[in-house]
Amino acid sequence: MRTKTPAYSEKMLEAAGKLFGTRRFHEVRMDDVATEADVSKGTLYRYFRDKEEMYLALLARASQQFVSELRARTEAADGARARLVAIVEAIVSFFDRQPHLFDLIQRAEIRRELGAAFPWQQARDETLRLVQDIFKQGRIEGTFAVRRPELAALLLLGGLRAVIRFSGQPRPIHLAKDVVDDFLGGAAVVGHASNN
Amino acid sequence: MRTKTPAYSEKMLEAAGKLFGTRRFHEVRMDDVATEADVSKGTLYRYFRDKEEMYLALLARASQQFVSELRARTEAADGARARLVAIVEAIVSFFDRQPHLFDLIQRAEIRRELGAAFPWQQARDETLRLVQDIFKQGRIEGTFAVRRPELAALLLLGGLRAVIRFSGQPRPIHLAKDVVDDFLGGAAVVGHASNN
Repeated sequence: MRTKTPAYSEKMLEAAGKLFGTRRFHEVRMDDVATEADVSKGTLYRYFRDKEEMYLALLARASQQFVSELRARTEAADGARARLVAIVEAIVSFFDRQPHLFDLIQRAEIRRELGAAFPWQQARDETLRLVQDIFKQGRIEGTFAVRRPELAALLLLGGLRAVIRFSGQPRPIHLAKDVVDDFLGGAAVVGHASNN
Repeated sequence: MRTKTPAYSEKMLEAAGKLFGTRRFHEVRMDDVATEADVSKGTLYRYFRDKEEMYLALLARASQQFVSELRARTEAADGARARLVAIVEAIVSFFDRQPHLFDLIQRAEIRRELGAAFPWQQARDETLRLVQDIFKQGRIEGTFAVRRPELAALLLLGGLRAVIRFSGQPRPIHLAKDVVDDFLGGAAVVGHASNN
């Protein structure tokens, strides 16, 4: 039996990602992935026992890419507020390039009940940690102090998920800035007129 | 063939809801539901062709209950801000009583791809509409003016979903008020110190 190589695995997952992105989940067959990746079916099955193992590997790969992109984009930004805008932009951009990931994540969450791995957990934990780090930086810099950091991080990330899933395309240019403005400073002008 | 009656259907869905709430999805068998509802297996299958049809009916029922509860709770509240707190409280309370609904909703979303009905859509649309109505009321009353209502409604409801799913139990007493305060007025004190 030949050894498995990361480059080969990468090639097959790249092909799988492409197919999941253009067809519906149940329409993607292992045969199609082998053809798309230009490998034999035997090779594909040597790397992934079945479709489930393959999409979980794809999700693990996406999780790592997601975290790397988020880290790179936030490190490049200067100051806590800009970093918060950068992480929001990075999240929107990542899912807009791979909208089928929502479906794969939901499937994996359901399979979790049967004891399957949930490879997206790392992405979830790491994103929360990055957001908390930015909150700390805001407080140290003196640019903004989040009152209830744990509650706020969930509100921001959960809210963003809904915006990505349910709001229209193309995205407004200032979407990330608008989200951060609403999040930090409030979505409303409070008490804008006297209460008669 | 005897006619189907809503009361009978209700009895079986009540039993199904109870089982989905205490066991994992794949552990709930049609047999168990028939036993729990004290009906014959034949009767259960006369109402629901299979487990999928049954859980979709359960979700349709939950969707209606959800919307009724939200309407009743918001109508009882006085003023837009109190109504916003009331709708947040009602959403948290509903899902805390039936946390298995997240799983059923995710399953139904996945089945949607195969052309199945998605009975939770009504709840989603109606909740957004109720939130938008409250925003309008706030503007008319002069208590708060939401700058970007569509974006804000998604941020609020998506954020709340994450809070319900991922934050700790028991809930802080002021959770709904905290969520609304963060949402309307901002999660942070902005520029709380000079930027050196």
